[in-house]
Amino acid sequence: MTLLEKARKGEVTEEIRKGAMSEGISPEKLLSLVASGRAVIPKNVLRKNVRIVPIGEGLRVKVNANIGTSRDRVDIEEELRKLEVAVKAGADAVMDLSTGGPIDEIRKLIIERSPVPVGTVPIYQAACRAVERNKSFVELTVDEILEGIEKHARDGVDFMTVHCGVTREALEKLRLGGRLLDIVSRGGALMAEWMEYNGKENPLYEHYDRLLDIAREYDVTLSLGDGLRPGCISDATDLPQIHELVTLGELTLRAWEKGVQVMIEGPGHVPLHQIETNMKIQKSLCHGAPFYVLGPLPTDVAPGYDHITSAIGGALAAMWGADFLCYVTPSEHLRLPTVEDVKEGVIASRIAAHAADIARGVPGAREWDDRMAKARKEFDWEEQIRLSIDPEKARELRGSSPPSDEKVCTMCADLCAIKTSQKALSREGKK
Amino acid sequence: MTLLEKARKGEVTEEIRKGAMSEGISPEKLLSLVASGRAVIPKNVLRKNVRIVPIGEGLRVKVNANIGTSRDRVDIEEELRKLEVAVKAGADAVMDLSTGGPIDEIRKLIIERSPVPVGTVPIYQAACRAVERNKSFVELTVDEILEGIEKHARDGVDFMTVHCGVTREALEKLRLGGRLLDIVSRGGALMAEWMEYNGKENPLYEHYDRLLDIAREYDVTLSLGDGLRPGCISDATDLPQIHELVTLGELTLRAWEKGVQVMIEGPGHVPLHQIETNMKIQKSLCHGAPFYVLGPLPTDVAPGYDHITSAIGGALAAMWGADFLCYVTPSEHLRLPTVEDVKEGVIASRIAAHAADIARGVPGAREWDDRMAKARKEFDWEEQIRLSIDPEKARELRGSSPPSDEKVCTMCADLCAIKTSQKALSREGKK
Repeated sequence: MTLLEKARKGEVTEEIRKGAMSEGISPEKLLSLVASGRAVIPKNVLRKNVRIVPIGEGLRVKVNANIGTSRDRVDIEEELRKLEVAVKAGADAVMDLSTGGPIDEIRKLIIERSPVPVGTVPIYQAACRAVERNKSFVELTVDEILEGIEKHARDGVDFMTVHCGVTREALEKLRLGGRLLDIVSRGGALMAEWMEYNGKENPLYEHYDRLLDIAREYDVTLSLGDGLRPGCISDATDLPQIHELVTLGELTLRAWEKGVQVMIEGPGHVPLHQIETNMKIQKSLCHGAPFYVLGPLPTDVAPGYDHITSAIGGALAAMWGADFLCYVTPSEHLRLPTVEDVKEGVIASRIAAHAADIARGVPGAREWDDRMAKARKEFDWEEQIRLSIDPEKARELRGSSPPSDEKVCTMCADLCAIKTSQKALSREGKK
Repeated sequence: MTLLEKARKGEVTEEIRKGAMSEGISPEKLLSLVASGRAVIPKNVLRKNVRIVPIGEGLRVKVNANIGTSRDRVDIEEELRKLEVAVKAGADAVMDLSTGGPIDEIRKLIIERSPVPVGTVPIYQAACRAVERNKSFVELTVDEILEGIEKHARDGVDFMTVHCGVTREALEKLRLGGRLLDIVSRGGALMAEWMEYNGKENPLYEHYDRLLDIAREYDVTLSLGDGLRPGCISDATDLPQIHELVTLGELTLRAWEKGVQVMIEGPGHVPLHQIETNMKIQKSLCHGAPFYVLGPLPTDVAPGYDHITSAIGGALAAMWGADFLCYVTPSEHLRLPTVEDVKEGVIASRIAAHAADIARGVPGAREWDDRMAKARKEFDWEEQIRLSIDPEKARELRGSSPPSDEKVCTMCADLCAIKTSQKALSREGKK
């Protein structure tokens, strides 16, 4: 039985117990969320010692870090360092999106070493394998594509992105025009290319039941990819995007029927005033399934700073219902991220996630901030640093500019408002 | 006559003409906004060649950068470099908050060299002058405090923060308790200390008419400070904060009566789900006067990254009505910002402001993003870099990791979705 099926039967498994404890909620509450599909616990049946990370409605917002090589940049050690840095910075999951070098080896190493759930996009594997065999991706058979997916499941992948919603009908909508950037999802573009070349329906849609059988066998959580996500704010919330979301909602129900856990992937590039609508329509069309968003980026003009842009969009998205934020690094749109970029990306997303947790009323979220406020009031700098989202960075900045009075900092120095007001408010009135 | 009075008379001054042009709106529209107090143009009557920066309802959201020394860190050349870097990064205004070293000299140099409007908090001046004379700030007379303010006006300051709303009644509310951090505004804390020591009302409140006379004489825009702003999310939207805002609303009307332009300063630390309310209550209580916000920071736990936290809060605030964002740097809560911090802070705030501009429907805002999307579609990297909010940074990141195919980048390399999908969608169907 899968985790979903066990939850439906009311079985309080170790996953439910551990997950509930980490969320600060009762096992019954988490059980009910998982049973109804409103939360998922990505965990391949073959994986041992992986952290239990429940993702979904009302739970702490989780952060994913994408790592992995590209054809132009292959350094296995660097990718393993990215894994380490991402987890240390607080990523709740990582995706290995390697498309260059010995990708089987890289994936196995990442799964072996990752304490957190690992996701992949198996279609990249198929594309790379095709190239190895001197074939084009479009020449792959349906069986070969599904074999690539099964291979990832067998390797122990906990969740995988499958672009099932890029249907022929969806591509027709896309052809109606109106987009500035048609497809910006690698998986979506590959599927579109395959479909156009072969004149056939998307095999992940047409043979969705075979995909579900694989996911069921290994208890892999499906992350239904948004192959038609907007790649610029001008394309946001348009017909192709919403058409795909409608399809993903239907596929959600079919996955649940087979006992397979599902989350939905979402945009992308969305202006601020459309984020709330995007979150609500997803929850509605996809029957409450967890929403896993990339960004969203509320502006297209900040390459080099897209971790910030994404933190803005992600915070809003999570406040309004997104459950899982895929980080974006400062390098997005420019290059494969460095190890330092990975850290910056994770921290920015965690800030967004935590700000949203407070707004969502997640148990324990506000307490963290209140402890920080208390430490500030007491000029307890060690505690302030300890409580910081990145204690190393906080210590480094403070240490680089030591104040003459160790109680304060060099920004206000002797004019520290907290000090002044404590003096003022403790007076007994007129001298 | 002040700018406000001329606008009321329907006079299309050079300021209105230039301001309207820079905003892409008609002079009549800007005239009406200024006349009604819903927009301000900070410009001291003595200042020549200062950029015209209209701030207010429906206008492009502006960004301010705070610079200036503290007792623990005095380096005039560094502060002038901060000015230069802030303006180059796109700050629309700067505030000189110097409290250490030869602050008169620093202020004069900054005003002399700044192409954008300059603001100050004259009460800091008074506090520092008192120390120079071996007096405590609390021993200053009302006349001495007002002289300090007039001195700044005479020096050509375009806007100044005055903490008039920290009244005895407000402090009583504060004493009712409930706050984790009582006062985190330097100016607010100084006023509270003075009031408690002297057993008197806030002189900036009690002698508000004298303050208005100074502002009127030099046509200085008053920025009514939020001395009781929340310093942690636990204190947000509470009685002292809102009590002060009510007072500032009353003082707004009194300023307008005297022909003085006014904006209102706002929080501070505010959780995401309270930002909309905070913006709307300000616009309502303060009769549509422009809202100038510091942050808001939707979480307290990210020292070292508060430019990101602030960008999240600032974007939401500006979408919902804030007109002017005071940047926060990565060093906030830890040290006086460095030159590099100043740049990071300005860029983060500009991203927030621009994202909000799109949501506000500011003329021309979306077009910037659309040009970027078009350049991405066309693999026009020079144009992408040119259009970036920080072209140097974008060029540096891309240049550090050159792709083997110059059309793409090293993130996706040969699997570039835009390339793949253009190929796919241009096919004529089945082979």
